Amino acid sequence: MKSSALRRYIPFTDWLLRYERKNLPGDLTAGVIVTVMLIPQSLAYAMLAGLPPEIGLYASIFPLAIYGLLGSSRVLSVGPVAVISLMTATALTPFAAPFSAEYVQLALLLALMTGVFQLALGLVRGGFVASLLSHPVVAGFITGSSILIILSQLKHIFGVQAAAGHFPYEGVLALVGALGETNLATLGLGIASIALLLLTRKPLRLVLEKFVSKGAAQLISRVGPALLVLIGIGGVALFRLDSIWGIKVVGDFTTGLPGITLPSLELPVISALVPAALAIVLAGYVESVSVGRSLGARKRQAIDPNQELVALGAANIAAGFSGGMPVTGGFSRSAVNFDAGANTGLASLITAGLIALVALFLAPVFSALPQVVLGATVIVAVAGLVNFRELLRLWRYSRVDGALMGLTIVGVLGAGVEIGIGLGVGMSVLAFLWRTSRPHMAVVGRLGHSEHFRNVARHTVTTYPGVLLVRIDESLYFGNTRFLEDQLQQLIADQAEIKHLVFIASAVNSIDASALDSLEGLVVKFRDAGVTLHLAEVKGPVMDRLNRVDFAKHLKPGQIFLSAHQAVETLTPHPNPARAA
Amino acid sequence: MKSSALRRYIPFTDWLLRYERKNLPGDLTAGVIVTVMLIPQSLAYAMLAGLPPEIGLYASIFPLAIYGLLGSSRVLSVGPVAVISLMTATALTPFAAPFSAEYVQLALLLALMTGVFQLALGLVRGGFVASLLSHPVVAGFITGSSILIILSQLKHIFGVQAAAGHFPYEGVLALVGALGETNLATLGLGIASIALLLLTRKPLRLVLEKFVSKGAAQLISRVGPALLVLIGIGGVALFRLDSIWGIKVVGDFTTGLPGITLPSLELPVISALVPAALAIVLAGYVESVSVGRSLGARKRQAIDPNQELVALGAANIAAGFSGGMPVTGGFSRSAVNFDAGANTGLASLITAGLIALVALFLAPVFSALPQVVLGATVIVAVAGLVNFRELLRLWRYSRVDGALMGLTIVGVLGAGVEIGIGLGVGMSVLAFLWRTSRPHMAVVGRLGHSEHFRNVARHTVTTYPGVLLVRIDESLYFGNTRFLEDQLQQLIADQAEIKHLVFIASAVNSIDASALDSLEGLVVKFRDAGVTLHLAEVKGPVMDRLNRVDFAKHLKPGQIFLSAHQAVETLTPHPNPARAA
Repeated sequence: MKSSALRRYIPFTDWLLRYERKNLPGDLTAGVIVTVMLIPQSLAYAMLAGLPPEIGLYASIFPLAIYGLLGSSRVLSVGPVAVISLMTATALTPFAAPFSAEYVQLALLLALMTGVFQLALGLVRGGFVASLLSHPVVAGFITGSSILIILSQLKHIFGVQAAAGHFPYEGVLALVGALGETNLATLGLGIASIALLLLTRKPLRLVLEKFVSKGAAQLISRVGPALLVLIGIGGVALFRLDSIWGIKVVGDFTTGLPGITLPSLELPVISALVPAALAIVLAGYVESVSVGRSLGARKRQAIDPNQELVALGAANIAAGFSGGMPVTGGFSRSAVNFDAGANTGLASLITAGLIALVALFLAPVFSALPQVVLGATVIVAVAGLVNFRELLRLWRYSRVDGALMGLTIVGVLGAGVEIGIGLGVGMSVLAFLWRTSRPHMAVVGRLGHSEHFRNVARHTVTTYPGVLLVRIDESLYFGNTRFLEDQLQQLIADQAEIKHLVFIASAVNSIDASALDSLEGLVVKFRDAGVTLHLAEVKGPVMDRLNRVDFAKHLKPGQIFLSAHQAVETLTPHPNPARAA
Repeated sequence: MKSSALRRYIPFTDWLLRYERKNLPGDLTAGVIVTVMLIPQSLAYAMLAGLPPEIGLYASIFPLAIYGLLGSSRVLSVGPVAVISLMTATALTPFAAPFSAEYVQLALLLALMTGVFQLALGLVRGGFVASLLSHPVVAGFITGSSILIILSQLKHIFGVQAAAGHFPYEGVLALVGALGETNLATLGLGIASIALLLLTRKPLRLVLEKFVSKGAAQLISRVGPALLVLIGIGGVALFRLDSIWGIKVVGDFTTGLPGITLPSLELPVISALVPAALAIVLAGYVESVSVGRSLGARKRQAIDPNQELVALGAANIAAGFSGGMPVTGGFSRSAVNFDAGANTGLASLITAGLIALVALFLAPVFSALPQVVLGATVIVAVAGLVNFRELLRLWRYSRVDGALMGLTIVGVLGAGVEIGIGLGVGMSVLAFLWRTSRPHMAVVGRLGHSEHFRNVARHTVTTYPGVLLVRIDESLYFGNTRFLEDQLQQLIADQAEIKHLVFIASAVNSIDASALDSLEGLVVKFRDAGVTLHLAEVKGPVMDRLNRVDFAKHLKPGQIFLSAHQAVETLTPHPNPARAA
């Protein structure tokens, strides 16, 4: 393999095998700071996904390291993220009870499937499919899923039991029904936690900026969640919050490194999880690549979308085999990694190593962590992503785009993330097909005595009795064949004297099989109506295709003319201009 | 309502309220002949759908009459059809046991949902969505589902029990496993039935043509299945085939007209059936409209696609409330109706009335009908639809279209009809997006001393140092924004001396919100790289949109120029042509 290809497909050969000393301080700082931030996040997102908290740590060891080695972004930090955890919960709940051993198995399977799909898509250079997620759909998906995530965490804030249902509204109803059993101590701690987290976000940073550098202030404020975790654990230990006030804690926490796990492979379950895995592939990839691109642009580092798919795929496969859950590149975490000075993937390797140490030695501590603290962490992390202003802005820009975002939000809130994304993508594509389904079409005539033919509606041209010349300004494909058929048949129906219809294909770059089928149908229908269909000015590659299926034979007695001029000369042997339009 | 609108939206006001006597003989003949053909078909397709045979008759009474009154085609004959029955079975089997009371309830619900979706789609004039089913997908779907239908009937031919599985292959495995228990009498009767049906199809017709008119011969040959049914019933009655030879008969058969039924409405079940209902909506609509169009063309009667959706929707809703199952316009049946001389919807009303009489008085006779006869009827009906030659033809015409048909067949056979159609539609759309995702783009320069700017690769033009002029020949939408970003960034990366990039939008008819977002991102990224982005020749409607979101302000210090000429004049105050390409 040439060294440039090696650098592209196995990026760490570029930075790790010839590591530059000067990058170490930045990588080390970033690795440590991201670890501090990742601990509460990974625990919280695991619980959001309905998984024991240690799974969050496991998903932040091997997947993180693998992405660090293979990713084309040097600063993207991979691991559990909020929306993928929510999607995991939605996907798995119908098949097993959250926190059960079976459910954990299914999470491994889902991670593996996600990884295999991403890897496959990356290997066939299919990064292009991310285009399917248009901006309104992504914006609607982020706002809708953030609201769902907040709703899902409210039970922890109120300290009540409320099962998630098949549809989001069922979870809300269950929560409302359970509010009578609110644990006030938990609620108080929850509100205090949220307040503390909000304080450390911006106000604290602004105060700190007066004493330390702007960058340092920002970094310290990022440590807020970890600080809160320490306070929570300390509180439980000192004041026995759990046994006296009934504040729920994380409880049993498995210590140690993840073993090698083998997801169970049952075909019916696999096929049932396909839609969820595909939704996670898309959502995870879009989140990752947008973060990678925007951070990469600041350092003039290019992101290779297909290599990203390969790296994310490998990370998810690693998650499936090491007791994890589906992962992707997280926005806030990657930003912290970048701000803290990460220069290479080594920062992620360091984070992965530190998380492994935490899993090995610090884990018992977390069993005393109040669940409400994790709930508050999640809520504050996603609250800023709810963005209804964008809905207004899009609506103002274009009704269709605004409606697409609105529909996606409604879909996500009403029927869940997967269906919401599906609806948004489906409607975006339909809106696009609708727009391209009505190509421009012109009846043309001869300009003076030239060989040029122009639109009769715009130019003074000569037309010929019995011969209709029609130009279509678009390639023919399955989306516009029906419109075309209807239009051409209308033209014929309007003018009974027409005996020949010449379809001028000068602007047609391709004719797909559906359009071919439609043309063959038109030949027959026109023949029944006493009209012969001809083609003219067919481009070379299009003609080659038509020849492969002997289209000229189908067309008979219709002909394929080189030019509109030739068609007119042949079909009206003694040109007798009838009228000038 | 004006009378033309009345005729359009309530078609029977056109032909029934002022019925012309001369149409009666044709309508009467067609009504009777279709009845004779419909009896075995409706029984067989009900059993294919996993429903008691009388359901097939019920679905051929009210739905048939309602379509007759509301349909825009005068000759389309609506009722149970093979592929919709197969899709019904696939959709319902996971929720209840075939032939159980619960299953029958679900069939009503599915018919109702199908009807509501079709009606809604028709009312919003959404007939356009049928374009989604490209020719290769429809062809693949027909071939694949016909094979599935044949496979599903083989158990009746062999006289064995074999449960259908979640995936088609499971049914095949079950069948193979059960072949040891083949009932030879049943197999013999099955083979004889198939042979008889094949004989009446073409050979008998060719013989008959020597004695009677061609049309009459064709009609008599259509009665083959009904004849076979009579033979089957007679055989059971005379020779006690069921008790002596173990040939399974239809058995219990409810006599009488359907009551008014109310599908049970449970939200989780409804939502689980949505994909199946949507697939049936699409497949049923496409089958119906293609038949209607091709028969309509022969009589110069136009089909209104949206009115067809309304009429099919009403027919399916009627099926849901009158003990039926999902229905659509059938190909062979409509052709018979047409050939037998149907002139108006009265033919369908007559058929519906006769079927009602059959349900009332003749039903007990059918309990003696051997199942194997129905299985043979189904197999012969769909065998002719398996068409692998088309796969070859498409592959020869275009690799992409051939692959789409192949993929749809594999999807249908491997994972069922719904997933197969979904896969085909999804891949067709992806293939189209892929083709449109790489718009033509040209770096342009000034032609001589004119104000015209042309492609530097094709013309000898003047370019300007530090200013890059780029024209993009396509509207900007979510599918091509990423390609665009990459291309523009590449252009900048290649030429470090560039300070201004002027994007000439003369061929851009629209910019959707995704492309707007992308442009705003480019402004920032270019600014970071020391390049200012400008626009030129923005069309009026596009500019109006951009103004709504204050794009000019985002663009600063970039400007929006009226023309490329003006951009050059402004950005290079003292034009100093550097090189002529």
